Order: sequence, then C-alpha cells, then structure tokens
Amino acid sequence: MEIATRVWNHKWKIDPIVRSLIDTDFYKLLMCQSVFHNRPDVQVTFSLINRSHHVPLAKLIDEGELREQLDHIRSLSLTRGESTWLRGNTFYGKRQMFRPDFMEWFENLRLPPYFLERVGDQYELTFEGSWPEVMLWEIPALAVLMELRSRAVLDDMKKFELQVLYARATAKLWEKIERLRDQPGLKIADFGTRRRHSFLWQDWCVQAMSEGLGDRFTGTSNCLIAKNRDLEAIGTNAHELPMVYAALAEDDAALARAPYDVLADWHEEHEGNLRIILPDTYGTEGFLERAPDWLAGWTGIRIDSGDPERGAETAIDWWKTRGEDPTQKLVIFSDGLDEEKILELSRKFAGRVRVSFGWGTLLTNDFRGLTPDDRLAPFSLVCKAVSANGRPTVKLSDNPNKAMGPESEIARYKRVFEVGEQERRDVVV
Amino acid sequence: MEIATRVWNHKWKIDPIVRSLIDTDFYKLLMCQSVFHNRPDVQVTFSLINRSHHVPLAKLIDEGELREQLDHIRSLSLTRGESTWLRGNTFYGKRQMFRPDFMEWFENLRLPPYFLERVGDQYELTFEGSWPEVMLWEIPALAVLMELRSRAVLDDMKKFELQVLYARATAKLWEKIERLRDQPGLKIADFGTRRRHSFLWQDWCVQAMSEGLGDRFTGTSNCLIAKNRDLEAIGTNAHELPMVYAALAEDDAALARAPYDVLADWHEEHEGNLRIILPDTYGTEGFLERAPDWLAGWTGIRIDSGDPERGAETAIDWWKTRGEDPTQKLVIFSDGLDEEKILELSRKFAGRVRVSFGWGTLLTNDFRGLTPDDRLAPFSLVCKAVSANGRPTVKLSDNPNKAMGPESEIARYKRVFEVGEQERRDVVV
Repeated sequence: MEIATRVWNHKWKIDPIVRSLIDTDFYKLLMCQSVFHNRPDVQVTFSLINRSHHVPLAKLIDEGELREQLDHIRSLSLTRGESTWLRGNTFYGKRQMFRPDFMEWFENLRLPPYFLERVGDQYELTFEGSWPEVMLWEIPALAVLMELRSRAVLDDMKKFELQVLYARATAKLWEKIERLRDQPGLKIADFGTRRRHSFLWQDWCVQAMSEGLGDRFTGTSNCLIAKNRDLEAIGTNAHELPMVYAALAEDDAALARAPYDVLADWHEEHEGNLRIILPDTYGTEGFLERAPDWLAGWTGIRIDSGDPERGAETAIDWWKTRGEDPTQKLVIFSDGLDEEKILELSRKFAGRVRVSFGWGTLLTNDFRGLTPDDRLAPFSLVCKAVSANGRPTVKLSDNPNKAMGPESEIARYKRVFEVGEQERRDVVV
Repeated sequence: MEIATRVWNHKWKIDPIVRSLIDTDFYKLLMCQSVFHNRPDVQVTFSLINRSHHVPLAKLIDEGELREQLDHIRSLSLTRGESTWLRGNTFYGKRQMFRPDFMEWFENLRLPPYFLERVGDQYELTFEGSWPEVMLWEIPALAVLMELRSRAVLDDMKKFELQVLYARATAKLWEKIERLRDQPGLKIADFGTRRRHSFLWQDWCVQAMSEGLGDRFTGTSNCLIAKNRDLEAIGTNAHELPMVYAALAEDDAALARAPYDVLADWHEEHEGNLRIILPDTYGTEGFLERAPDWLAGWTGIRIDSGDPERGAETAIDWWKTRGEDPTQKLVIFSDGLDEEKILELSRKFAGRVRVSFGWGTLLTNDFRGLTPDDRLAPFSLVCKAVSANGRPTVKLSDNPNKAMGPESEIARYKRVFEVGEQERRDVVV
C-alpha cells in the first residue's frame, strides 16, 4: 500500500494524473485507427456530462488544478517505447494490428485544445476538431476529473487515515476477488480506466486481479498498464462509432443503415474476438431483427445497457433464429457490474453461451462506505460525441436514463429504429 | 503499508530483526542501571519459556536462521546517537536519568553468549553471566523468536496476500483506536515490544496510536521507537528484581524482606511516576498488608496478573487503610489487555483513582482471525531469570498459571508469603 504514502506525499505539489497517451482504453486506439482510415475529416465535438448532479465538481475541484492537468495532457506525445509496443506487440493474436500510416500519425499527435467553463457547481468541458484527434480526449479527461475529485477528498485526511482508507479498500477488493475465484470458467477483464479512483489504484487492482484470479483474469483495457505489467490489452468498439455515423446520415434511410455501415467497416479491419457487436445504441431488439446475416457470423455481443439477462437471452434467441450455435458465441457483459452480478450472470448462462465480463468502475473505484458521507463513492461521469459536422448525435440505449441528444432528434431516431417502450434503470456508475 | 512490500522483499535475504541495543523496553535499562549499582556481581541464568505448547517453535523456525539473528544481536553495540539520546534526553521529567558510570559501561557492552538446543519441537535457549549483562537479552530474544515465527508464516504468502493481510491488520488496529478515542481521560502507552508481530509493525502501531489518540497516547516502552519518533519512553520495573533478590535471601526472614529491599533501593534512585509498585510477585494481598508505610507514599501500583478489577480494588482499599487519598494515586493495568477491557476498566475506575494502561501484545501482535488456521495468532512466550548465584528463582503471581520455580521452593515461598487459595486464569498472551 505504498499508494497511501504517495497520496500523502503528493498533496503538496503538482503530480500529473495522466502521464502517457496510451494511459487510455485499447478500444479507443482501435476505433481511432478505423476513424483515421474511414472518416478522418469529420469534425466532432465531445462534451463532458456529469449524470450525478449531486456531485458538485466545480466546488470540489479547483479550476487552476484542472487546467494544469489538462494542459499536461496536451504536452504528451507517444514515447519511443510506447510506439514500439503498439507496433510490435501481438493483440488478440495478431501482429501489426496498428498499421504504419496510423502509427506515424499517432507518433506526431498532440491532443487538440479544450474549452473549459464553470457553470454553477459544474464544469462545461468540450473538445472540438477532427474526429481521430478529439476522440482521444475522452478517457484522459474522465480520468483527470475522477482523480481530482478523489484527491480533493483525500486532501483533508491525515497520513494514517489514508493508510486505513486504502487498507479497507484493499480488503474490500480482495474479498470480491476471493468470491470470484471460486467460480469455474470465469473470464474477466479490467474495464475501469475512465472512472477509476486513481491511476495508482487501478494499477493496483489489476495486479490484485492478476494474482488472485490467474488466467481467469484475461487482461486490462488500459494500454499503459497492459504494457507495463505484460498483460493482454482488451477491448473492441464503442457507441461513438454508430453515433457519429448516424449523425452524418443524409436522410432516414441512410440513418437506418448507419449502425450496419459502421460494422461493415469494422468487419473489413478485424476478425475473431474483435468482431463483437455492440447492439444497444438505438435499441438492441430492432438492431438485431434488421441485421444482415453476415453479422450473425460475428463472434459475440456486448451487453452495455438494459437488463443484462434479457439482453443475453435476446442475443441467444437471435443467434438461434439465424441458424447459429449460441454455445459457440460470446456474450460480454460490461454495464455497472459488481462481483455479485458477475457471479449471478456467470451461473445463469454457464453452458448456454460463452460469457466474459468487462468489469469497470466497481472494480477500480469502489470506495463506497469507506469515508464519512461516502464522499469517495463513484459517480456517473461520461464524455461523449455530441455533434458531428455540426449535426447533433443521438443515443437511445436500452435504458432511457442513458439516452442523449435533442428531444426532436430522439423522437426521429425512435421512429426510424422502431423503438417502443423501454424500461428505465438507475445509472449508478 | 510499505510493510507488506518490505516483508515480501526480505524473504530472500537475511534481514536483522533487532538492529539496536535500545530496541528494548525502557524499564530494562532503568532496572539494569539499578542492578549495575546494587548487585553487579550476581550471576544469573535466563531461560526462554514457551507457555503455548501448541506452537512448535522448533518446527516453524530454522535453527540456522535463529542463530544468525542471535549472533547479529551479539554484534551490536550502542551507537553514538543512542548514547547521546540516553545521556541527554529527559525521562519522566528528569535529565541525566542514566548516570555517567552506567553509560560508560553500557557503551562498552556486548551481550554475552547464548546456549541454544532443540528439544523436541521446542528450543531451549538460555543465557548465563552477570545479571546486568544477561538481563538485556530478555527483550531481543523474545522479539527475535516472535518475528521469526511471523516470518515463517508469511514466507508462504504471495505479494498481494501479504498486502491484504496487512490491510486487514491495519483496519483492525484502527477500529480499536477509534473505539478508544471516544473515552474521555484515557491514558495509554505501548508495552508491546517483547511479543510484537515484527519491528516494523510495532513502529507502525505506535504511529497509529500517536495520530489516532493524540496526547491520550502517553508513549512507548520501546527506546528505539521513542527516540526515532520523538515520543516519551515509558516503564518502571519488573518481576525480575524481586525474584532475584528473593533467590539470594539466606533464610526465610531475609526472603520475606526481599521484595521490600528491592523497592528500598528503587526508592533511593527514583521519584514521581517511576515509583510504581509491582505487588504481585508473591501475592498482592500479603505484599500490601506487610508493606512498610513509606511504600504507601509511592505514586501508584501496576496490576500485572489476576483479576484486574479485584487488584485495583485491593490497591484502593490499601491506600485508604494507610490514610492515602486513592484519587491522587495511579493504577497501571498491563496484563493481557485489549481495547474492550481497557474501556471497561477505564469506565469502572473513573473518578476513584487515576488510571493508565500499558497495552502490549494485543496492540502490536493482534493478527488473530487474519490467516487460515490462525497461524499468526500471538502466543505466550516469556524469558525469565530462572536462577541467581546457583539458586532457583520463584514467582507465585496472582495467577497460578503464571507461577514459576521448583515445586518445593514454590511451597516454601507460599508459606513465607502466606499465600492461600488463588484463582487460575487463562494466559493468552
């Protein structure tokens, strides 16, 4: 637990939170390469959205400190070692996943400017520019805000209080791992970069998972940690691809096609375990019903909103109607998981479909119950593409509480994608 | 919790447990000076006694490692900084507590040889020579055996398991401190050197007490930690003084006088809070009944065996019969304390007598319940004077389970000191 000592020591000086351009999710780099080849000139705006209004970020976090952290990220460039790792490493069994033209571009990249304004007790933080550049702000921007919030709380604590806090968090994490390791056939990865408590804590959680779960721990979405700890980098694709493709559609017919166009591009670039469908952007059921047959041949489906059991049942039924054997298919759960839910889903679908888990915020930021007033509890902060070439983006999701976009556009998308009644579910993290 | 990392790292090399001649209890040095002036030529034998037969020390601890640690202690001598601290520091409000002739002797001291033999699953470890030299073996010998036992258990654990172990121990300790800090008027000191889990852990516990309890934490019995952490060194005197004085008595009349002769010598050397009676060596009740009036003028009484409430009531009654005001007197509890017992005694005697606590093994070695099979639970190991000038020593105590000496001698002492029926109490630590 040197973490506590380091936390205590760095109270008095600037200590960068993000120290590397690859301290980000692996799928961001995969998607970035795809965008770089297929849509390099699209202009996008990404915005920070704090879904947890009760957390007054602008009261907790000093604007000067936030600017220092963001400015530091703009000073970063890919190091030689990082470039060598990306160029030379094997990802998902494949060498040279990242092509030379992309790597050359990445090596010369600096992140574009940010726009920061305090509005009431919240910050408005936006990023504008070409899609492949702006998209790389998402993860570091979230990680900076999450960690500055942690530090704001930790700043009030004395040295031994910090030791006890991390001691309790360590014990809590280990109890989760002990419960998980009794589950046969478990496959689980760390997806917790964006809303982690801190970089050091995430690094720590990954080591704990690795020691505690052995090869049932399949790797981490964080490239820097994967590189430093010699683990697999894990990830596939996210909502921003269909959201931006959809925003660019010229008419309703093109809009209806957009989610499949994205995957057609992806299909050409990737195979095997990277062919994972994320079906919920505009409603899972309609998406699958209208999907072309070649999509049924993909390896699996990621369930990221709505009732996860229902999502998996829908996927299994869909594969069956398309003549596929579900036991050969993969379902990846990644929405708001904690160890109880992981165990429940794992037991529920054992033998019916291959299952794996992307465990995020409640792996790397479960400080619930460890401080008075729960001031370190994780909260729901996202950073999303809100427009593309001047047009607003829309997300419907399988949970209306995760929907985004202007109301009139949401109505249009619901019509185009034939989305009916949806079940509202609380978004905790 | 750098401790876990250091534990993990030192698995592969020799790492001395005792690194200083003042890594010992303060009262050992006070008693040593008294012996150096009053009985320097007495020849004594000290022996290790493992009261917890279920802990097979010789199976757990490698004899070679034990010899290495003991040999390392024999190579130690007082450093210049340690000597300066002992000569220049204020102890119990008094400068130059340690006189120049004693300091000169101490600066030239190396500890005498030890005799080690494996007998079954236990070690026989004895020390022979002049009293002031041999007596300084007690604390380091115990600390070495306790910590080698801890290390033997820790050796089987992986890095993260160690982190979790220390995380849990830290949380456990902090919960005790949180309970204690609500108690008004508490005065408590660390007496946990001899049966500590390890040096680093004791050092850690002391820092936790200091941060958590503020000035309700009065200091530590460990001179090295007191020096390094700028805390008060705490302690008075122990059973070995009356035990050796009694063994040297030429007849029953001299034997009956011996416990008071010890305190008469002490009376000349010390005042104030160092005038603390330890009455239980040959039975508290008889000792107090027959005590000379000048002893009733001493500052307090330490209760180290038997029922602590009864011991304190006996002391209060005694002071009253001798015309003393108990509310001006001090009772120090130091036998097998844990935080519940501390709180109970503190509440019970509030307003009736001044109370303070010497918290030992369950402060610095409470790893109960933290490992499978409780392999790190503390146990009852002592190192005692067993003979003086060829005559056996005897201790009766207020608890027959803590008595020592040949049976015939125990019978003689019981007769001389008029000790009747005694209540047996389990000895945990």
